[in-house]
Amino acid sequence: MYSSTRIAICGAGPSGLSQLHAFESARQSGSQIPEIVCFEKQNDLGGQWNYTWRTGFDEYSEPVHSSMYHNLWTNLPKECSEYVDYPFDEHFGQPFPSFPPRSIFYDYIRSYAGKNNVRQYIQFNTVVQWISYSENKQKFHVQIKDLKKDKVRSEEFDYVIIATGHFSTPNIPYVDGIETFHGRILHSHDFRFAQDFIDKHVLLIGNGFSAEDISLQLYKYGAKSVTLSYRNKPKDFKWPDKIKEVPLVVKIDNEIVYFNDGSSETVHAIIFCTGYLYYFPFLDDNLRLKLSSNCFYPPNLYKTIFWLNQ
Amino acid sequence: MYSSTRIAICGAGPSGLSQLHAFESARQSGSQIPEIVCFEKQNDLGGQWNYTWRTGFDEYSEPVHSSMYHNLWTNLPKECSEYVDYPFDEHFGQPFPSFPPRSIFYDYIRSYAGKNNVRQYIQFNTVVQWISYSENKQKFHVQIKDLKKDKVRSEEFDYVIIATGHFSTPNIPYVDGIETFHGRILHSHDFRFAQDFIDKHVLLIGNGFSAEDISLQLYKYGAKSVTLSYRNKPKDFKWPDKIKEVPLVVKIDNEIVYFNDGSSETVHAIIFCTGYLYYFPFLDDNLRLKLSSNCFYPPNLYKTIFWLNQ
Repeated sequence: MYSSTRIAICGAGPSGLSQLHAFESARQSGSQIPEIVCFEKQNDLGGQWNYTWRTGFDEYSEPVHSSMYHNLWTNLPKECSEYVDYPFDEHFGQPFPSFPPRSIFYDYIRSYAGKNNVRQYIQFNTVVQWISYSENKQKFHVQIKDLKKDKVRSEEFDYVIIATGHFSTPNIPYVDGIETFHGRILHSHDFRFAQDFIDKHVLLIGNGFSAEDISLQLYKYGAKSVTLSYRNKPKDFKWPDKIKEVPLVVKIDNEIVYFNDGSSETVHAIIFCTGYLYYFPFLDDNLRLKLSSNCFYPPNLYKTIFWLNQ
Repeated sequence: MYSSTRIAICGAGPSGLSQLHAFESARQSGSQIPEIVCFEKQNDLGGQWNYTWRTGFDEYSEPVHSSMYHNLWTNLPKECSEYVDYPFDEHFGQPFPSFPPRSIFYDYIRSYAGKNNVRQYIQFNTVVQWISYSENKQKFHVQIKDLKKDKVRSEEFDYVIIATGHFSTPNIPYVDGIETFHGRILHSHDFRFAQDFIDKHVLLIGNGFSAEDISLQLYKYGAKSVTLSYRNKPKDFKWPDKIKEVPLVVKIDNEIVYFNDGSSETVHAIIFCTGYLYYFPFLDDNLRLKLSSNCFYPPNLYKTIFWLNQ
């Protein structure tokens, strides 16, 4: 039933699962499919949606993948996140809001994976450490670590699908004087609960989706004030009283933060909502995206999916 | 002046610098020495002592190495940290306390490095990604990444000295129910300032050196209370009123923490002072220490220094 072609899929999040689902559906329809192996470093499927209380490193000293916080709600209308081969109607059996909470969407993803029994293809607690391509062999050489057994091995594949996402490795720029700041500094990647900021003056650097959502959570859970520092232009929402937007932060001196309009604030905590980096440390140089900053259409990916050899 | 032998030193902290110093001293005395290359992933020397405000990842997405906090003072009598070839008297020129603060000791280390001009051997912002040994060639194959250029290369060495330390990768055990805790959870590796815990009830898990020092800092800076949970036995110090020791934490339910003597506490933050892991992800399996927990005398290291082939 399987051809001799081998395909590695890195990551069992929404995208990796979609690949697995497509191959398994083809197999169940009687097609011959390649041999598929999906490597997932976490102990379960779901990628970002596999929420964890941990920050920094996981129990195997791998960087924590998920940037989810406890009370995250999706920020895209649900229709943008629907699997074409698993309609929401089939899963939920009833209408539900456009912006579901994290746990509901996770339930949908897990059910999608369970429906077609794609777990059979996934090796959990298994991280891909290095991928290179051999022109001679016309194969990908993949170095894999079994985290539970603490054992490294190598395998060869004809194709590799990278489905590890790019909202895991935080971008944390330097701000002049930040080393003098005595409060908590974190990136939204490590934000888990708004309750920890009750009665605090909080500075959010950035005014994208994360800053928008986290500022409202901080407000709801009782932060004393929230200041959003934007790079280019303000959102100019009708923010609640306790939230305001200011221009870019230019300097920090102990607890005082200065902005480029000359204004300043005294704050207790700084949350960087400054986005994520394209980061594929397990890919050989000649297989890897190299971008100076985030962009929607990376130049070396045909249709933003297929890697073009240079 | 150099022999054809090549030696790689991984890490330019106190131990790596000591190696460099010894080789450079030999060279200055007229000895022929091997070619030495020291790879340091940080942008300066000092290892742990190169304090950073960052936690989690550095600007190149490498895990932050230093576990220092702003107000750290050394916890070994200074005599245990003296370089045999650079006496404290020579550096300081006057007596100084047994337990100096971080910045004083860092100054000593930097001066030691400067004295003999060992910077010439160090490649900064350069991380060792993978080391394997070729029996055929009788050489170590070392894969190195230049972080600034975002470029990977390989080199061969006759010997490799691992001087990366083992107080960088936190050990963070699971506690039943911890995912329900709504406050801040961190490991002492990510602790930077005690000021962030003013007026808070803080639980410290562990009662080793870090717990001892951090609990006193929290007390001094105005934490409302500090509870130390020990695994084996209490320190039984004459703690200040606001600090107390309790047995092992067994369960967490929202903000309430339960201990194995049946007692419980309501806390706002949890700091794991549960030590570090021997973690050398850049070493091939057969070159790597494999220990189930920390120990002082790893079985495969002769005199705790030289790796024994198995």
